Amino acid sequence: MELLRAQNARGHFVCVGLDSEFAKIPECVRSGRTADVAIAAFNRAIVERTGDLVCAYKPNVAFYEAHGGAGIEVLRHTINDIRSLAPEVPVILDAKRGDIGNTNNGYVQMAFEYLGVDAITVHSYLGREALQPFLDRVDKGIFVLCRTSNPGASEFQNLPVNGGPLYRFVARRVASEWNKNGNCGVVVGATYPEELVKVRAIVGDMPILIPGIGAQGGDLEKTVAAGKDSFDQGMIINSSRGIIFASNGPDFAEAARRETQKLHDAITRCLSNGGEQCRQSS
Amino acid sequence: MELLRAQNARGHFVCVGLDSEFAKIPECVRSGRTADVAIAAFNRAIVERTGDLVCAYKPNVAFYEAHGGAGIEVLRHTINDIRSLAPEVPVILDAKRGDIGNTNNGYVQMAFEYLGVDAITVHSYLGREALQPFLDRVDKGIFVLCRTSNPGASEFQNLPVNGGPLYRFVARRVASEWNKNGNCGVVVGATYPEELVKVRAIVGDMPILIPGIGAQGGDLEKTVAAGKDSFDQGMIINSSRGIIFASNGPDFAEAARRETQKLHDAITRCLSNGGEQCRQSS
Repeated sequence: MELLRAQNARGHFVCVGLDSEFAKIPECVRSGRTADVAIAAFNRAIVERTGDLVCAYKPNVAFYEAHGGAGIEVLRHTINDIRSLAPEVPVILDAKRGDIGNTNNGYVQMAFEYLGVDAITVHSYLGREALQPFLDRVDKGIFVLCRTSNPGASEFQNLPVNGGPLYRFVARRVASEWNKNGNCGVVVGATYPEELVKVRAIVGDMPILIPGIGAQGGDLEKTVAAGKDSFDQGMIINSSRGIIFASNGPDFAEAARRETQKLHDAITRCLSNGGEQCRQSS
Repeated sequence: MELLRAQNARGHFVCVGLDSEFAKIPECVRSGRTADVAIAAFNRAIVERTGDLVCAYKPNVAFYEAHGGAGIEVLRHTINDIRSLAPEVPVILDAKRGDIGNTNNGYVQMAFEYLGVDAITVHSYLGREALQPFLDRVDKGIFVLCRTSNPGASEFQNLPVNGGPLYRFVARRVASEWNKNGNCGVVVGATYPEELVKVRAIVGDMPILIPGIGAQGGDLEKTVAAGKDSFDQGMIINSSRGIIFASNGPDFAEAARRETQKLHDAITRCLSNGGEQCRQSS
């Protein structure tokens, strides 16, 4: 978490989601390349043009696993590229893993040894006891799914539990019981700013990973107002498709930088004027 | 699910969990081999000696992902071996995945196209809307985590929701709302036989995947009495370490067969005498 906090302290809050689905990569990158080579080249170009603006990169494993073993190798390659091109930028593996304890050791090995990422997202359903192999990694960040950004998230997450919705119960457990090593964070979608307010009140200054800005339609102004901690920090605001697929032409990396800069500037404005007039300029 | 039902109809209920952790594989298999080659050889020997006794194989992805891209290739290799050696035996990928809808497409691709498995385990937390890419696969089985086998499972799964514990609410949603294609099942640990009774009452004749027999200590007699459906079927009773690591010598595959046969016979006895004297012979 130290790397993420340091990036926030430098005024960086944008997390670029490297959800590099092959079919959506510009034709000029795909042409004449196999899927794995094309995805690696695409990611590298994005990182080259955005590394100085972001607080983190967040590849979602699903887009890589879709290509089997070769896809996982590409992801490792991309992470190595991030280490060379933007060594101060941490990588959050969006893996949403969660198994019994003995088995989670395999995921810990995959994420923190094989891929060497700095943080991972996990499911809470099996409880703290099962997630202990993740929580024991004091050097890494463990982001627990709390209120997800999808339209159907409320089916379970808003169920009433002990007088409040389940997602708040999860937030409370993570903040009060799971965070003994100070390495926990929570995930709350930007598409639910009112829920974000509630979670921030529960977790204090714990980092919140906030997906759902951009293609998913989250409102930035409300997100920053609701998501910032008492130091005006503690936010990792993720945009994936809105940045990496901003152009499907040869200027895709430049377009990604432009969108990253826009989002960065808009967040900075939100923070500097307390929430007024911080909308992204068009 | 048809393949699983057919295996149950033939009197097969044992699922062998191919949780083939490299460090636990017998030295005689590991010696002189790289991890990926050793795991593939180990799995192949187990499948050769157990294929005629089992209802399914259930590799847990974590043990393969621990080895990165090469690990995923080994898993694919093992699944191909199962197709050749035991073509009537379905493969359940224990992946416990669950992301937003757009992203789950990547996992669907990985599981059902790249690996070509017959069923997968998933987390419910993001709700039906997010899991639709899985649920839409009418030709595949989707096992939703309900009551897991680990000691700390009750932290969230027993939370009171609408007058009953969360795991029953999940079971009810899956049975009443998610199973439009008749392709759903639920996961309930053998370590909680009372909860298994409750879930069976909720889900009717839906298949239940039951891990936790063997190394995790679940009681077989109670499990069969609680888990069987109205046709004395609908159970996939998984043992992983108790079978595949039954011997760490060169007789490991024979020992795996012996343990599988013992479990198979014990289940058969439980079913034939209504639960009396069905303990495994030692």
